[in-house]
Amino acid sequence: MTTNDANGGSSQPSHAPVPIDGRAPLDGLDTEQLAGVGDMDPEHFRIAAHATVDAMADYLAGVRGFPVLPPIEPGSLRGLFPGAAPDAPEPVAAMLADVGRLVAPNTTHWQHPGFLAYFGTTASGPGILAEMLVAALGANAMLWRTSPVATELEEVVVDWLRRALGLPEAFGGLLTDTASTSSLIALGAAREAAGTRAAAEGIAGRTDVPRLRVYASAEAHSSIEKACMTLGLGRESLVRIETDDAYAMDPAALAEAVARDRAAGLRPIAVVATLGTTSSTAIDPVEAIADVAAREGLWLHVDAAYGGAAAIVPERRGPFAGWEGADSIVVNPHKWLFTPLDASLLLSPRMTVLRDAFSLVPEYLRTLDRATPVHDYSEYTPVLGRRFRALKLWFVLRYFGLDGIRRRIDAHCEWAADLTAAIEADPDFELLAPVPFSTVCLRARPRELAGREEEPEVRADLDDLNERLLAAANATGEILLSHTRLRGRFTIRVAIGNLHTTRGDVMRAWEILRTEAARLRG
Amino acid sequence: MTTNDANGGSSQPSHAPVPIDGRAPLDGLDTEQLAGVGDMDPEHFRIAAHATVDAMADYLAGVRGFPVLPPIEPGSLRGLFPGAAPDAPEPVAAMLADVGRLVAPNTTHWQHPGFLAYFGTTASGPGILAEMLVAALGANAMLWRTSPVATELEEVVVDWLRRALGLPEAFGGLLTDTASTSSLIALGAAREAAGTRAAAEGIAGRTDVPRLRVYASAEAHSSIEKACMTLGLGRESLVRIETDDAYAMDPAALAEAVARDRAAGLRPIAVVATLGTTSSTAIDPVEAIADVAAREGLWLHVDAAYGGAAAIVPERRGPFAGWEGADSIVVNPHKWLFTPLDASLLLSPRMTVLRDAFSLVPEYLRTLDRATPVHDYSEYTPVLGRRFRALKLWFVLRYFGLDGIRRRIDAHCEWAADLTAAIEADPDFELLAPVPFSTVCLRARPRELAGREEEPEVRADLDDLNERLLAAANATGEILLSHTRLRGRFTIRVAIGNLHTTRGDVMRAWEILRTEAARLRG
Repeated sequence: MTTNDANGGSSQPSHAPVPIDGRAPLDGLDTEQLAGVGDMDPEHFRIAAHATVDAMADYLAGVRGFPVLPPIEPGSLRGLFPGAAPDAPEPVAAMLADVGRLVAPNTTHWQHPGFLAYFGTTASGPGILAEMLVAALGANAMLWRTSPVATELEEVVVDWLRRALGLPEAFGGLLTDTASTSSLIALGAAREAAGTRAAAEGIAGRTDVPRLRVYASAEAHSSIEKACMTLGLGRESLVRIETDDAYAMDPAALAEAVARDRAAGLRPIAVVATLGTTSSTAIDPVEAIADVAAREGLWLHVDAAYGGAAAIVPERRGPFAGWEGADSIVVNPHKWLFTPLDASLLLSPRMTVLRDAFSLVPEYLRTLDRATPVHDYSEYTPVLGRRFRALKLWFVLRYFGLDGIRRRIDAHCEWAADLTAAIEADPDFELLAPVPFSTVCLRARPRELAGREEEPEVRADLDDLNERLLAAANATGEILLSHTRLRGRFTIRVAIGNLHTTRGDVMRAWEILRTEAARLRG
Repeated sequence: MTTNDANGGSSQPSHAPVPIDGRAPLDGLDTEQLAGVGDMDPEHFRIAAHATVDAMADYLAGVRGFPVLPPIEPGSLRGLFPGAAPDAPEPVAAMLADVGRLVAPNTTHWQHPGFLAYFGTTASGPGILAEMLVAALGANAMLWRTSPVATELEEVVVDWLRRALGLPEAFGGLLTDTASTSSLIALGAAREAAGTRAAAEGIAGRTDVPRLRVYASAEAHSSIEKACMTLGLGRESLVRIETDDAYAMDPAALAEAVARDRAAGLRPIAVVATLGTTSSTAIDPVEAIADVAAREGLWLHVDAAYGGAAAIVPERRGPFAGWEGADSIVVNPHKWLFTPLDASLLLSPRMTVLRDAFSLVPEYLRTLDRATPVHDYSEYTPVLGRRFRALKLWFVLRYFGLDGIRRRIDAHCEWAADLTAAIEADPDFELLAPVPFSTVCLRARPRELAGREEEPEVRADLDDLNERLLAAANATGEILLSHTRLRGRFTIRVAIGNLHTTRGDVMRAWEILRTEAARLRG
């Protein structure tokens, strides 16, 4: 098996072109599986991986040919697979053929240029290359010792991002899997910072710990509420603060809610300001919220999972003014920074509080031999094992360069502005929220219903029309849009942010919406 | 950028051999970065990815040539990287060259045949191929709708594993990132199952929720304690039950602790039985613990993150008898099932309780169009975004086949038995724990100290000797071992489970330990 010769490293590029439609060149590779006790031989891996690369590049070149959402029924796929794992080994060629036959046609194509749903994730070329290398290295970045370069490169790229976002040096940070985890860590730190000694003593059955309260806008992401569930605060601990016409938190209402809860004997511990909400990308007034947080001694967590990427463009930093007063900030590179899932950036000027909330070092993880302090990043997280995520940030930031990333974010915002202008000029559609970034909230509203939108029957008709419009638009297979509700109104979202999308794709989505709306109205 | 021609999918294998030491073939690819707003062109990706594959295969072929642990000082790497991300794009060739120059020599080599520390993780050949494909697909497996095949293939491979482990059909399950998350979900479900309504109301400030208690052996993994911290139960909620001579939980002591806590007004909610502890791979008596759990109404969580893999071998299922009585079980494919980090399997016959504890479906994630019930796996987890982990299980199980996996697990256990026999035959070493699986706990104990091990001064000398022995063995660069403490004694662990390790490597580790011990004793 593998490298029984020391100082290996065959450097001749031994691969011939490998067709994956025929099995011939791969078939001979599989004999080692039948009797061996090791891994795939590295030279066999080389051949199989070259074939895999061709399948990947073919997929990327041809992804536009798939309907974005596979037109299949839930439950229709399970039966295509055997009911049990095989006892005998199977050839790589068969597995790759099955990827083409069973997997590619039946996934939702996040890499499709017409993917405009949720918030896009781009597994960009450099990001994929890095994921490949990370897979081959196989390192667990839980401790400095278990992969020094994974740890120190994480320090480096976290600081690159901190600087690119225009945040002060006081912010340290780390990479986690998703914003759910980043916000959970932030609120876990808030729980600790409130003097509960929750990490040690827990919060149940404590006469000195009343019900705790976290504040966020009515539009804040579900991950905040889920973090409250996980942390033992409960869904009820999350107080949803009303929003203004632009779906942004009202800081006066926040201050009132805090005062009311204190008077009721509850303990406010944190407020979450969202810069770019999921429904409409609304921007909470972070400076005013920071003032309330400071006055009330609350941990201020900023959820900029999507919107934060825009702060890389200095000219677009206006909405972020004041976020440097946060105790923690989350920005997701796997959203609008073109990095494959998963990669979430958590920044904080209070890293020791994060560590207090989550550190636990058993003997078998104690490092024996280090003279200088280094990060053991697993001390800051609810999980121990950690993938080497820094490498893909390093690749993505270098490949595009910050200027290239700024140009791409600018382009997405400009296309969203173009779409916004088109909607505003169309008497049969209406915009349902401001467009501060690259996501547009709209609905069809036939001109004859203008002015009557709030009549109950019209409301219901519009909801119904737009739900059917969304389904019809998605049924074209050319695009995938998702929906939300704003003030109860069924709302279609066009979320631009996938690197494969062009201006033409955005305009095509608009054409589809107009055409399908006209068709539905007969 | 990308695929502006519909129905793409260039199928000609256009790659020539790509040297990564010279830059020529890659250099021409980078012009698109300078002005474009899209991703790397798919054909450029193809060329760059072929070069990356050669770097990966070279690494795997040559990994034995590296010292397992890089001989560097903490903090010595940061300074090798620029202080800020570049504004201008950089060529892929430079990035790949930097991987060879900065990354490969400075990671801990988990793929090295001499990696015998912690528990091994193998990024096996088929596992890496799957990770490559997953990266290219870029799908988020949070909902059925966001990748139907990721969801239904997860159902399939979870059931393949359930069946392969010999567990009844009542067990459903899902894949998470790590055992930390799997156990957190399990204990979150336990918190809910205890009638606390914690997900909704939280556990702080409740007159009807006293301090909660979770039981695990003194040898249980830190992830259990961390889950207690995260969930708001606190470290103090974890009651460590004493162990017997084999480091297995004493079920009588468990029953006593539960009774004592009930009498003190605390509320016992869960017990964790570990099948294969981290320090010594001890096996808690799960059948007897299940009896206590049933009698006391406790959630029984089985942590078989490492050991569970052995249940794939029917002849090795003895220690698992009774685990089918568990409310939840975690087995980590990224430990002893040759799957790249991260991949943890959580099984439970009470999936609805898991969902009760973690489900939260906001409007923007509500699926509108499904007739039949399907899993939206993010309802079962503290995180929303989820990588498409099922694909690598599908590849690993098919490539090796269950028989191949059984043969490999058998081989690792046999080599551990061989090493155990050698230690037992050596008058200058001693075994410190039984060896039920493939991990051996030992220390040097010079023959002249036999019988005097418990004298305080001898204890200290032995600890010191073995700490130095471990450092000396690791300093050879040929192997990496880790340590623990058993009954306070400094213990060297030889953990076999990495697919690149051969019997020769295990015996070489033993030779190194003997040689270095002799040298240290002068």
